[in-house]
Amino acid sequence: MTESVVWVAGVGAVAGLGAALARRFAREGYRVAVSGRSLDKLQAVVAQIEASGGKANAVVADSGVEADVLAAIAQVNQLGTLKAAIFNVGNAVSAPALELSAELFEQTWRASTLGGFLFAREATRALLANGGGSLLFTGATASLRGKPPYTAFAAGKAGLRSIAQSFAREFGPKNVHVAHVVIDGSIDGERIKSRAPEYLAKLGEDGSLKLDDIADAYWYLHTQPRSAWTQELDLRPFKEPF
Amino acid sequence: MTESVVWVAGVGAVAGLGAALARRFAREGYRVAVSGRSLDKLQAVVAQIEASGGKANAVVADSGVEADVLAAIAQVNQLGTLKAAIFNVGNAVSAPALELSAELFEQTWRASTLGGFLFAREATRALLANGGGSLLFTGATASLRGKPPYTAFAAGKAGLRSIAQSFAREFGPKNVHVAHVVIDGSIDGERIKSRAPEYLAKLGEDGSLKLDDIADAYWYLHTQPRSAWTQELDLRPFKEPF
Amino acid sequence: MTESVVWVAGVGAVAGLGAALARRFAREGYRVAVSGRSLDKLQAVVAQIEASGGKANAVVADSGVEADVLAAIAQVNQLGTLKAAIFNVGNAVSAPALELSAELFEQTWRASTLGGFLFAREATRALLANGGGSLLFTGATASLRGKPPYTAFAAGKAGLRSIAQSFAREFGPKNVHVAHVVIDGSIDGERIKSRAPEYLAKLGEDGSLKLDDIADAYWYLHTQPRSAWTQELDLRPFKEPF
Amino acid sequence: MTESVVWVAGVGAVAGLGAALARRFAREGYRVAVSGRSLDKLQAVVAQIEASGGKANAVVADSGVEADVLAAIAQVNQLGTLKAAIFNVGNAVSAPALELSAELFEQTWRASTLGGFLFAREATRALLANGGGSLLFTGATASLRGKPPYTAFAAGKAGLRSIAQSFAREFGPKNVHVAHVVIDGSIDGERIKSRAPEYLAKLGEDGSLKLDDIADAYWYLHTQPRSAWTQELDLRPFKEPF
Repeated sequence: MTESVVWVAGVGAVAGLGAALARRFAREGYRVAVSGRSLDKLQAVVAQIEASGGKANAVVADSGVEADVLAAIAQVNQLGTLKAAIFNVGNAVSAPALELSAELFEQTWRASTLGGFLFAREATRALLANGGGSLLFTGATASLRGKPPYTAFAAGKAGLRSIAQSFAREFGPKNVHVAHVVIDGSIDGERIKSRAPEYLAKLGEDGSLKLDDIADAYWYLHTQPRSAWTQELDLRPFKEPF
Repeated sequence: MTESVVWVAGVGAVAGLGAALARRFAREGYRVAVSGRSLDKLQAVVAQIEASGGKANAVVADSGVEADVLAAIAQVNQLGTLKAAIFNVGNAVSAPALELSAELFEQTWRASTLGGFLFAREATRALLANGGGSLLFTGATASLRGKPPYTAFAAGKAGLRSIAQSFAREFGPKNVHVAHVVIDGSIDGERIKSRAPEYLAKLGEDGSLKLDDIADAYWYLHTQPRSAWTQELDLRPFKEPF
Repeated sequence: MTESVVWVAGVGAVAGLGAALARRFAREGYRVAVSGRSLDKLQAVVAQIEASGGKANAVVADSGVEADVLAAIAQVNQLGTLKAAIFNVGNAVSAPALELSAELFEQTWRASTLGGFLFAREATRALLANGGGSLLFTGATASLRGKPPYTAFAAGKAGLRSIAQSFAREFGPKNVHVAHVVIDGSIDGERIKSRAPEYLAKLGEDGSLKLDDIADAYWYLHTQPRSAWTQELDLRPFKEPF
Repeated sequence: MTESVVWVAGVGAVAGLGAALARRFAREGYRVAVSGRSLDKLQAVVAQIEASGGKANAVVADSGVEADVLAAIAQVNQLGTLKAAIFNVGNAVSAPALELSAELFEQTWRASTLGGFLFAREATRALLANGGGSLLFTGATASLRGKPPYTAFAAGKAGLRSIAQSFAREFGPKNVHVAHVVIDGSIDGERIKSRAPEYLAKLGEDGSLKLDDIADAYWYLHTQPRSAWTQELDLRPFKEPF
């Protein structure tokens, strides 16, 4: 009998959401395949999980590159039985539309949309072979509407959300639980901590989304019984305007 | 120190969703105030909860009647400290639009929308006085779009969803977690069991929403930390088309 | 052969939207039945239309009262052949949710939702008898989401939008074109002119919706060929944030 | 004084929507720059317009290739004063998700999303320089939700819709009217006529969207006064279920 495995794509800093998602599933006994572009960062996450008695493996891969994704799923499948797959890649690129280059627009799409599709396709193959499981996507407010200066990011996230819906409708009946999480607010993670600490402080206690609180929602989605699956939920700090 | 109380409105048959919600919170140690129009039905639910070692009280009230709601909240407040309030009233009335009487249209609105508003207003007052808590609403696919022959039901549910959003925006920052649950599919409860058993059988294992699985989602919403609250989620059997 | 008639409900001041809608259809040769609660106001609108060579009749009716609506449609049907019916009733009531009385909540619903249903039901009967026509509803940003302090207004408008959808799905295939107009922004009409002239001035040229520009959209909807009908469109000043 | 120009991208067969849009604006006196990948097809459209006394020019360009788009806008700007730009590119690719190649997924995105962005960016520069104008996008039901087997198409269209929203919010206040048309139903054009004539016949009179009726909606959007602009509308045959 093999171990249960979760694949988390889009893992960077230890203090980022990808790492928190990995820790959450590791805490439940899952072996975690963490993937991302930086081996150093992945190893730091793996080391932290192992130090807590968990099981994790680094899988270097750029989600926007098909060969990488194919190599990654092959590695993931070697680790045990894939039961859950989480696509957490994305970067809130911003620029006035007239200054947005085709290159940056494409790069944003590769990360968010193409990467999401390739991840979904390969993870779904494995989940179907294993009798089902969860396929979870990290979305954002921008997934629901385009707004400057997030023209590229919003288009990429809108495409990702559409993919989540198509996969849900196609593979839900085959026992793959596809859900999309709309994160609406600032995440209390490495990115904001390093770039905008004053803004974070101003949001106050619980005014930004705590990594572990977000991770709990993904775990909840994974454990929902199939008579009552959620396809989409939003997560938002209690005092966030919307 | 007083007991933690949850108020569940829209409790009927033991095999209905209201009763399942009551049991779920009772299992966690909450005293449950179950309200509805039929004392007999409420007492059966109370008896069942007490038989399992839980604590419950019947509060007869018609949610669409302000005096009833005011009397109910007074009783609820006497039972302990209100921490959660669930509005689960509703009846999927159906009729061709040209045969729909003003009376039936109004009655449907009283149950769904006016009742939801009065419940929300009174529960919120109590929750604010107690430092916060959860205010949860049962919605349906019809909450999101009008479709015949559910003209009256959909209008009532659309109004209820709007109320949930208004309350979420007004009272979220004051520590009241307002969430709306969109139930999309057939509930494996008393109503369908008695009226359309063959249809239910045809949906198959997990093809209809199990009461306890739905109730878990409400409990999850209630326990979400406020750094990452959900305002709306859908619940749907894995093979339900959407 | 009888005259083509349009029924516009929710007609008040000459400088309001209802009157502008009436003028727009009168200009195209329709006989206009203008209905509302104030005979004085209706007569002023009728006089203005007649002064421009148009044909109009005042039909006093409270849209939220079934007997009034039934009496109104009887009068309307006497005037000629109903080809279009526009429900333009609504009042953006505002109040903090905890100070909102059941009475005001109900009154808002009667005007927006119940009135909309009764109007739709009776107008549809006539349109079907006449081989089809248009049934148009005035919505607002609040139709799409609940937001304080518009808790009552938004609930009423959400219910109205749901009705528009239900009727569209039920009667579109029977040649009744049902459309919902989401007005997002300040209307350059009597209400704001009298209550908030400074705010209106600050919005600047074309920063508020001109009555005649809105009316053009209703006329456009009415004249769409049935191979390509619109069910919903939004109208918004060019510089309105959204 | 130069001529008013409309740029229509995504023009193919004379019996397609792109050509109908071109004819509609030509009829109003606009010089039409029709762009697409096939010179032969563009020339046929130009010839037809010229035969009716209109003015048109063929601009060969692949919307998904930046160099082509830059060359196209340069040509367009030479023709006169750009007043309207319509992005009508798209192909409803379908495939089961697990059989969808990265290549096809990317190609679909290039046509729909990247092409839409590049078109929007370059057309907006010109429109701003000319004091404003219209930027219109052709969307589909798939723009609003992902559904198999349209996984790639829906993702591309969702991205395009997001772009339309971002541009509307950024450039509306600068006098550029950005609107997105959701076409829901079968278009009575070359594609279905040649591929599924029996299906088309079964839809019956007005059961599919007529090209000229769709084109009227774009012209209407273009002529809306800026005090009441529409950002999105749907078009659907009267008996199309939705």
